Amino acid sequence: MSDVVPVVLCGGAGTRLWPASRSARPKPLLDLLGDGSLLHTTLERARALTPKAPWLVGAAGLEQELRRGAGARARLLLEPAGRGTAPAVAAVALQTAAEDPLLLVLPSDHHVADQTALAAAVTAGATLAREGRFVVFGVRPTHPATGFGWIVPGAPVPGGHAVARFVEKPDAARAEGLLAQGGLWNAGIFLVRARVLLEELEAHAAPLLAAVRAALPSRSGATCRLGPAFLDSPDLALDVAVAERTTRAAVVPLDAGWSDLGTWQALWEASPHDTDGNATHGDVVAVGSSGNLVRAEHRLVAVAGLHDHVVVETADAVLVVPRAASEQTRAVVGRLADAARAEAASAITGPRPWGQARLLDAGPGWAVKRLEVRPGEALSLQVHAHRAERWVVVSGTPAVELDGVVRTLAPGEVVEVPAGCAHRLVNDGTVPACLVEVQLGSPDEADIVRLDDRYGRPTTSLTDS
Amino acid sequence: MSDVVPVVLCGGAGTRLWPASRSARPKPLLDLLGDGSLLHTTLERARALTPKAPWLVGAAGLEQELRRGAGARARLLLEPAGRGTAPAVAAVALQTAAEDPLLLVLPSDHHVADQTALAAAVTAGATLAREGRFVVFGVRPTHPATGFGWIVPGAPVPGGHAVARFVEKPDAARAEGLLAQGGLWNAGIFLVRARVLLEELEAHAAPLLAAVRAALPSRSGATCRLGPAFLDSPDLALDVAVAERTTRAAVVPLDAGWSDLGTWQALWEASPHDTDGNATHGDVVAVGSSGNLVRAEHRLVAVAGLHDHVVVETADAVLVVPRAASEQTRAVVGRLADAARAEAASAITGPRPWGQARLLDAGPGWAVKRLEVRPGEALSLQVHAHRAERWVVVSGTPAVELDGVVRTLAPGEVVEVPAGCAHRLVNDGTVPACLVEVQLGSPDEADIVRLDDRYGRPTTSLTDS
Repeated sequence: MSDVVPVVLCGGAGTRLWPASRSARPKPLLDLLGDGSLLHTTLERARALTPKAPWLVGAAGLEQELRRGAGARARLLLEPAGRGTAPAVAAVALQTAAEDPLLLVLPSDHHVADQTALAAAVTAGATLAREGRFVVFGVRPTHPATGFGWIVPGAPVPGGHAVARFVEKPDAARAEGLLAQGGLWNAGIFLVRARVLLEELEAHAAPLLAAVRAALPSRSGATCRLGPAFLDSPDLALDVAVAERTTRAAVVPLDAGWSDLGTWQALWEASPHDTDGNATHGDVVAVGSSGNLVRAEHRLVAVAGLHDHVVVETADAVLVVPRAASEQTRAVVGRLADAARAEAASAITGPRPWGQARLLDAGPGWAVKRLEVRPGEALSLQVHAHRAERWVVVSGTPAVELDGVVRTLAPGEVVEVPAGCAHRLVNDGTVPACLVEVQLGSPDEADIVRLDDRYGRPTTSLTDS
Repeated sequence: MSDVVPVVLCGGAGTRLWPASRSARPKPLLDLLGDGSLLHTTLERARALTPKAPWLVGAAGLEQELRRGAGARARLLLEPAGRGTAPAVAAVALQTAAEDPLLLVLPSDHHVADQTALAAAVTAGATLAREGRFVVFGVRPTHPATGFGWIVPGAPVPGGHAVARFVEKPDAARAEGLLAQGGLWNAGIFLVRARVLLEELEAHAAPLLAAVRAALPSRSGATCRLGPAFLDSPDLALDVAVAERTTRAAVVPLDAGWSDLGTWQALWEASPHDTDGNATHGDVVAVGSSGNLVRAEHRLVAVAGLHDHVVVETADAVLVVPRAASEQTRAVVGRLADAARAEAASAITGPRPWGQARLLDAGPGWAVKRLEVRPGEALSLQVHAHRAERWVVVSGTPAVELDGVVRTLAPGEVVEVPAGCAHRLVNDGTVPACLVEVQLGSPDEADIVRLDDRYGRPTTSLTDS
């Protein structure tokens, strides 16, 4: 299917998988199934379907992470802010209109167990899409789900059916009916010719298309930043903007072990289990326990006599919830957000453009962090008005710049950064550099002025270094 | 009751309360009910009963912690190693034989809700004890417990009964029978005249008494160390050595909301609950949850839709177990011990004679710790063969000695301790000193030679600093 171009959508934080996923550690970048990040496995899946390089659409703030996850051949389209899937896909359609490929729209944070079945469905869908159909893939339901949109198939067409209608997330009774009448789940996977999509957008979402067109970068390259005009687009999903309005919609059944990994319960279902039905990740000891999802990111987690529960441990938060009640995770995040707690959205251990920062400890007027700087990366050149810093190199050979003076460090070396000193950390070495940073004085993360930042981050900000 | 002297027994780690309690963080030193350490509340209870200063018997390795917990007026008897409660009480009886007080033996890690009822029982018991009775207190059972020893009351005596017999931990059927016939739980609380106890020991446990007598320090003081002869004593509980053998045993009923806090379930029962029956400690967010015991020592713990479970979070381990299965905690510790895991017994965050050490982070060949040194305390003068250390002072004004050279430090100052350097940290200041220590080189805790230690710890050991 050499005319198929993958469009991988990287929006969405997935707060229902808190505390593992937060807006600062979005779900596509997490390894939830032990086989690499969800973005990585999605790209592997796409690569098996088509030789064409994929397009990734995601937040500008995640450029480094997306580029690392996508590899060199992928093309990045960076949104100033998310506006739903319709503007994201529209941007790719505009960029590719000339060659008019089949755009295979794939969420970046789903799971598909059966690659062969996926390939068969996409092949069938491609035939329809080449004829100008707007193809949606309909997952054969395993239960009357109220958490998904549904698709009711209509008259048969070669390889699938016309779409009788779309149904938004139904109530339980409605879902039973949809299941009985052969309804399918809308997986958010689409296949459509670029120009066909543009025609449909022109017909059904002209203002959206206009805003995206105005936001397109003047010249295209491996990485394109969408302009501020993108923010003028309405916030619309592709289903709503086009699929539900077009007369050209066709549905192709997909029976490939699909999961949106939307809840801890869904993740447990998609995960490999031990003989007791436990799905574990990290340093877990389970005694007389069964049917649990236990994720230990940071410390030993021990469970005993525990059945059908979810236990998720991270550097700054622990969640325990019965598997069957795992949607309640969202209520926890809501409660934390109401209390203006940092754990709701940010992560003390999280990616930075240059590597990783982890808060180890803090007290009145001081904090201790571990900084991991990847080879070739650098923290911004910055000044703190009220905060002094001490760095102890534990591994690697980073270079430090203090008020213009640069020196290369070895493990064990200590750097004293007084308040008011313009400092920068650069890892020109070939291995990651790991440092322990002790902050003294103002614990205020906002006490930072960036004189220079290769990642284009703002001069002042709430994230460190 | 001015002739009553409290004997507070501080042995026992309480591994059934892992991960909160470990041999390195014994149960009596923990604040499990939010009202101070169990040792502290036990001493408060004793102080309300008698003006006499208490005796504490515990491990020599815990001298600093016991002294801090006991206050200046208490007398400490330090065991080179635990030999059960009989030798411990015997030592106090020998020390106090001259004045021949009533010894009120109290475990240091139990809970008694109703002080008035306790006082009434002790008053009744004192009358019997003055007449030469060996008084045991029998807790009115709330259920046919198989986890306690039982006492079957015999013929009435003023204020209580003679003891018909003692029953070791019974099976379920036997326990039902004991409950039906008015049996009482043996709470390990005793009241007996010092000389009466010595007579009984002479009659029923002569070798034990001889070993303890040989271990007595030449002169008594506020703190007495029992000599190595103590190790020759058989390991016996006071119940077995005397109570079950003497003809002078009497039992006084105790109906005072007693709990041995022996399991997480028992702790939940003794804890204050919110309106949903949750007992929480620390930074806990509970959504739609009930009947849980949630203990957050170190970071946020969130539970949602969780019912009747135990969640315990510490710096290095998390435990989740259904409340009704909380004895299985012991199986977890067994599993960890079999795997030779440090978490089984030691605690990365734990008391040191000089303050507290907390492991913050570690990697191959390096570790980061936070050291808190109390005013007037000092780490040992020590050398590491393969490990270099870096210290960053974050608060306080500790003094550092490096190969004989002493200098006083201020917050923000950095100390580089090369491998092979004899170093010591002393806090001569009036406020606690807090330092961040980065260890580089050998991560081996055993890489330590103590040249001088004011706490009498061995030259080489497995605990740091």
